[in-house]
Amino acid sequence: MRNILLTITYDGAAYSGWQLQPDKPTIAREIMRAMEQIMGKAHTLYVSGRTDAGVHALMQTANFYTDSAIPAAKLVEALNAKLPRDIVILSAKDVAPDFNARASAKGKTYTYVIYNDRYLSPFYVGRTWHVRQPLDIGAMNRAARILEGTHDFKAFMAAGSAVTNTVRTVYAIEISKKDPLIKISVSGNGFLYNMVRIIAGTLVYAASGKLSASDVAAILESRDRTRGAKTAPPDGLYLAEVRY
Amino acid sequence: MRNILLTITYDGAAYSGWQLQPDKPTIAREIMRAMEQIMGKAHTLYVSGRTDAGVHALMQTANFYTDSAIPAAKLVEALNAKLPRDIVILSAKDVAPDFNARASAKGKTYTYVIYNDRYLSPFYVGRTWHVRQPLDIGAMNRAARILEGTHDFKAFMAAGSAVTNTVRTVYAIEISKKDPLIKISVSGNGFLYNMVRIIAGTLVYAASGKLSASDVAAILESRDRTRGAKTAPPDGLYLAEVRY
Repeated sequence: MRNILLTITYDGAAYSGWQLQPDKPTIAREIMRAMEQIMGKAHTLYVSGRTDAGVHALMQTANFYTDSAIPAAKLVEALNAKLPRDIVILSAKDVAPDFNARASAKGKTYTYVIYNDRYLSPFYVGRTWHVRQPLDIGAMNRAARILEGTHDFKAFMAAGSAVTNTVRTVYAIEISKKDPLIKISVSGNGFLYNMVRIIAGTLVYAASGKLSASDVAAILESRDRTRGAKTAPPDGLYLAEVRY
Repeated sequence: MRNILLTITYDGAAYSGWQLQPDKPTIAREIMRAMEQIMGKAHTLYVSGRTDAGVHALMQTANFYTDSAIPAAKLVEALNAKLPRDIVILSAKDVAPDFNARASAKGKTYTYVIYNDRYLSPFYVGRTWHVRQPLDIGAMNRAARILEGTHDFKAFMAAGSAVTNTVRTVYAIEISKKDPLIKISVSGNGFLYNMVRIIAGTLVYAASGKLSASDVAAILESRDRTRGAKTAPPDGLYLAEVRY
């Protein structure tokens, strides 16, 4: 039995997220359908982590077990020929039997992209969060420093999530600005549900004077989601890297 | 009577070009519909130059005459509120009565964008020409030098065009590469039908060894479209600037 790891990029705008759902277009459904067409039977895909509706991936990973003999390079070509153009397989490689796209991951980076100008360029629709008001990158950076490190991020998890251990380590939050785009890259050992989108919302509040750095510290300390900023829309979120 | 100049950007992927056509989605139709909703009656739009189906604009211009008293800045806001998100009015300003978006233009720049890699990123679908084979930028530049200047560009005009004076001046063809993107910017005093797309097709042929620089010179000299390279697809073409 081979264990094959796929690296995938997708524009999530047209999809109801990664996960299979009845009667809804999802990334997993498209890839599994292409796999079945090529390999003649259904395969289960183990993803590094689900992405929500409208969220994109520059680099998503998923593995599957198969007895197919198709060489990995040919599989990439064949899958891409069957997939819609907004989902692309970048690579496939044989990995050890015990490799798992989720459990073997050492860390991940998400990038959140903000389009900060009066009007949203037509070329960034569905791919950024359009924020009209001027943003103070200095204030955004000061708030970001507070969130780096190992913390209980319960205040940065969507209400209703069943996860009980809410301690995570954020290795770094890097903010870059190239007008009119602001990119927030968040690297960590794991993320709670909606965590990066809540961080992005919080940093935009900080950058527009709605929250001070000490407000952000108090929110983190409170472990109370209701005290925080709004969740940024999915449009601006990209899974950028999964590290093994 | 006021004469108002609009500056417009659009993603042309979903449209059958600029020009009004029965039962087809066009850029002009969307803008004229929004204008009618806001100003209460139909207005004629005079565009700097039509763009074809699938072609984009970073900066298109069009003027119209009106007796509306709406201040220009308010008009921009109001139009954008009525327009689909893939068409954006960037500015509106009152201009002299004899100003005409087409006739007053001193020059234009088009940018043609090539995505040169094995697989096309989902984020560039409909917005670039996907070319898989390696391209030699040096050879592309040598061919570009031949096309700069004042020439009879009849060999670079779509067959069947009714234009009789086919002499145009290309001020500059600038090529920039930032993997995996190659951008070809063509500035000139005017362009024949499909001229930039034929230039892009020719430069890609030159960059992939299908045409030498002297072949390109011979094609230009021949004034014969049938001898040239294929027309590059509309997806990669952007009207980038109209100069007055």
